[in-house]
Amino acid sequence: MQQRGFLLILSGPSGAGKNTVLDAVRKRCPDLVYSVSATTRPCRPLEKDGRDYFFLTKDEFQQRVEAGEFLEWAEFCGHCYGTPLIHIRESLDKGQVVVMDIDIQGARQVKKKMPEAVFVFLLPPTMAELEKRLRGRSSDSDEAIRRRLNTALAELKAGIEYDYAIRNDQLERAAAKLQAIIIAERCRVRRSEYSELLEEIVGEQGVISEDDEPATY
Amino acid sequence: MQQRGFLLILSGPSGAGKNTVLDAVRKRCPDLVYSVSATTRPCRPLEKDGRDYFFLTKDEFQQRVEAGEFLEWAEFCGHCYGTPLIHIRESLDKGQVVVMDIDIQGARQVKKKMPEAVFVFLLPPTMAELEKRLRGRSSDSDEAIRRRLNTALAELKAGIEYDYAIRNDQLERAAAKLQAIIIAERCRVRRSEYSELLEEIVGEQGVISEDDEPATY
Repeated sequence: MQQRGFLLILSGPSGAGKNTVLDAVRKRCPDLVYSVSATTRPCRPLEKDGRDYFFLTKDEFQQRVEAGEFLEWAEFCGHCYGTPLIHIRESLDKGQVVVMDIDIQGARQVKKKMPEAVFVFLLPPTMAELEKRLRGRSSDSDEAIRRRLNTALAELKAGIEYDYAIRNDQLERAAAKLQAIIIAERCRVRRSEYSELLEEIVGEQGVISEDDEPATY
Repeated sequence: MQQRGFLLILSGPSGAGKNTVLDAVRKRCPDLVYSVSATTRPCRPLEKDGRDYFFLTKDEFQQRVEAGEFLEWAEFCGHCYGTPLIHIRESLDKGQVVVMDIDIQGARQVKKKMPEAVFVFLLPPTMAELEKRLRGRSSDSDEAIRRRLNTALAELKAGIEYDYAIRNDQLERAAAKLQAIIIAERCRVRRSEYSELLEEIVGEQGVISEDDEPATY
C-alpha cells in the first residue's frame, strides 16, 4: 500500500522501561528509524557525532532554535537537547516510521507541530514495581526516590493526553503491543495515498471507467 | 488494563475475502465475538436460530425497527436483515470486541449510531484477481461479472471513509494486520478507564496522594 511514514512518540516515567521495550521492538521491526537528537553537552568517550547525538555549540544550537529547525527542544542540567526536523522529514518522506523517546513536555511540543504523529505512553506495571526499579538502579536517598515517584505519578496522569497506553507488565507482551500499534497505524486510511492504491489495484484491467459506475449504486 | 469493548466493522467488495480473513483472525483471537443478525428470511436446513440468525416474522422485525432495536438494517431480495443492538451492547459492556461483516450502507448507518466503532475496509489484491475469484465461484454471465466488478469498484472508492484499509494480497498477512488493529485499538487511551487503570497501578502504595504533587511539575 502507498503509505506516508509517521512519527511515533514514546513517553513514560523513568523506570517504566522505555529503552528495553524499544530494544525489543527494534528486533521485531528492523526497519524503524530512531531519531537522533542534537545537544550542546560535550561528546563522551564511545559516543559518535551523528549516531548518538549531533553535537553542537551553544551558538549553533541557538541559531537552529531561531531558524525553527527543531521539532522540540529543552534544557536539562545546563545543556540543550533538541530534535532536528530535517532528518525526521526525510525519513517520513521515504515512508519510514520514526521513533522518538521523549518526555511529556517534549511530546506536547511535538503534538502542536505534528498532530498527526502517534503518541504512545508506557506505564509501569505498578508503583511498587516502579519503586523497586528506581531503587535498583540508583543510590538515591529515600527522599530522592520519593520525589522521583511523585514525579512519576504526575507524569502518569498525563498519559490520558496520549493516543495509546501500554502497561509494561511483561516485556515481550508490551513490545508486541507497540509493534501492533505500528502495524495498525500503517493501515490507516488517512495516512495512505488511497487514490494511488486504487489505481494500483485497478491497474491495466480496463474493465472499469469512472463514467461506468452502475446507476444502482 | 480496564478497557471498554469495541465494535469492529469489516467491509469490502464481494470476493475481497472477508470470510476467509475473519476465519483466520478467529484462530488468532479466539475471544472475538461475532454479531448475529436478525432476518425475516426462512430458516434453512442446518441453520440454527440464535447461532446463524435470529429468525423473525415480518411483523416482529418491523416492531423492532420501530422500537429502534437495530443498529442497522436493510432489505435484500425481499427479506429484511438487521443487527440487534442489545447483544452488541451486552458484549461491549463485558469489554469484548464484537466483529461485524457488513456492507458500506450498513457501515454508514453504524457510523451514525456508534461513531466510536472501528471501521476496517478489506481490499482485493488487484481487480484482475477479484475478477478471477468472482468467475471461479459463480456461473454468472460475462455481463453479470462485469456488473459485479463495476459494483466492486464503486465500493472500493468508499474505502476512504474507513479508519483502516487492508489489502488482502496474502491471507495470513492480511489476518495479522487485522489482529494488529484489534490489539492496537485495545490500547487506545480514549477507550480505557484511565483513572481506574491509574488506581490499579498506584494501588496500596500510599507513597503518593493527590495533594502531594511536586510543585516543580
